[in-house]
Amino acid sequence: MSKKGLLGQLIQSFCCLPGVGAKTAQRMVFYLLQRDRQGARRLAELLLLAIDNINHCPQCRTLTEDALCVICADPARDRGLVCIVENPADVWVVEQTAVFKGGYFVLHGRLSPLDGIGPDELGLDLLRQQLAAGQVKELILATNSTVEGEATAFFIGELARKHQVKATRIAHGVPMGGELEFTDSGTLSHAFNDRKVF
Amino acid sequence: MSKKGLLGQLIQSFCCLPGVGAKTAQRMVFYLLQRDRQGARRLAELLLLAIDNINHCPQCRTLTEDALCVICADPARDRGLVCIVENPADVWVVEQTAVFKGGYFVLHGRLSPLDGIGPDELGLDLLRQQLAAGQVKELILATNSTVEGEATAFFIGELARKHQVKATRIAHGVPMGGELEFTDSGTLSHAFNDRKVF
Ligand SMILES: [Zn+2]
Ligand SMILES: [Zn+2]
Repeated sequence: MSKKGLLGQLIQSFCCLPGVGAKTAQRMVFYLLQRDRQGARRLAELLLLAIDNINHCPQCRTLTEDALCVICADPARDRGLVCIVENPADVWVVEQTAVFKGGYFVLHGRLSPLDGIGPDELGLDLLRQQLAAGQVKELILATNSTVEGEATAFFIGELARKHQVKATRIAHGVPMGGELEFTDSGTLSHAFNDRKVF
Repeated sequence: MSKKGLLGQLIQSFCCLPGVGAKTAQRMVFYLLQRDRQGARRLAELLLLAIDNINHCPQCRTLTEDALCVICADPARDRGLVCIVENPADVWVVEQTAVFKGGYFVLHGRLSPLDGIGPDELGLDLLRQQLAAGQVKELILATNSTVEGEATAFFIGELARKHQVKATRIAHGVPMGGELEFTDSGTLSHAFNDRKVF
């Protein structure tokens, strides 16, 4: 059996997954083909469907298969309160606390000049338009409590100030140096309730 | 954003991968959709192609997209010498040593009565037919050096004896309790050269 051919190409394609090297990719592919072809087919078909149908919500930039995400489309949510997060996964984590009933704005990253990630890459022009429109009363800065996350919060806080919009930072119940995505609901609930003017 | 819907289903489908839990599945899916849709499409398309086209070689039972695998189809390989391995991945590992020029027989497992894996599940009836046909002169037992791998080697060794076929076991250059798949080429080359009558 050659490493080339369909099997070799398939294993190589699995190496595009984060944290997956050649050995792990090989184990995954053999497992799927030998033990779970039904699961593998479902994974492949859903992935193609997602690639073609999931895009950024035009209002909050989270990933959605709909024209407007379910949160932005929900009239019960308070769009005067906007929570700024780095990733779509963070939206899910905050939603699990059930403490927050406003809207979101997803940066898809954090300011990182060395990696060429500036305000444009984070959609801050869209945020600026939303602030200028006057409906937003408070921005809750829920970027990660890493050096880059804090710098991003500071930058967006300045932006809010320019538009006379209140900016708050979630309390540091989130472990220092930690990432929002890996924080438990309880800590995060506390962090939301304890938020301070930024 | 709800956990249901296409995105939630896609994340759940990634949990069928070995060693991948909900958190890792979520990270993989967000990574693919945000950073590498091209790689994701390639992965999905190759996976569907593999599911539909990759099957067991009718002679050695390894995974192949061809009617007969490239090793079985190669007239330069000595079919008188058959190496018994547990998994298709083991074939690749042995091929990398470039020390072995015979054929293979892939068990897709090991004898494990508690898991309901007996001789039938390992294709030993097909092996018996090949031994009875009289072309095979030596079986090299290269199952893993685990308790179950040794028991499987012993069982197949007995089968060889019944057909007056010589059975050898690769030398224990393979670390005791270790798996073939995770052995380096040098150790494995040594183990092949040092094989003993079983
Ligand atoms: Zn939205
Ligand atoms: Zn074959």
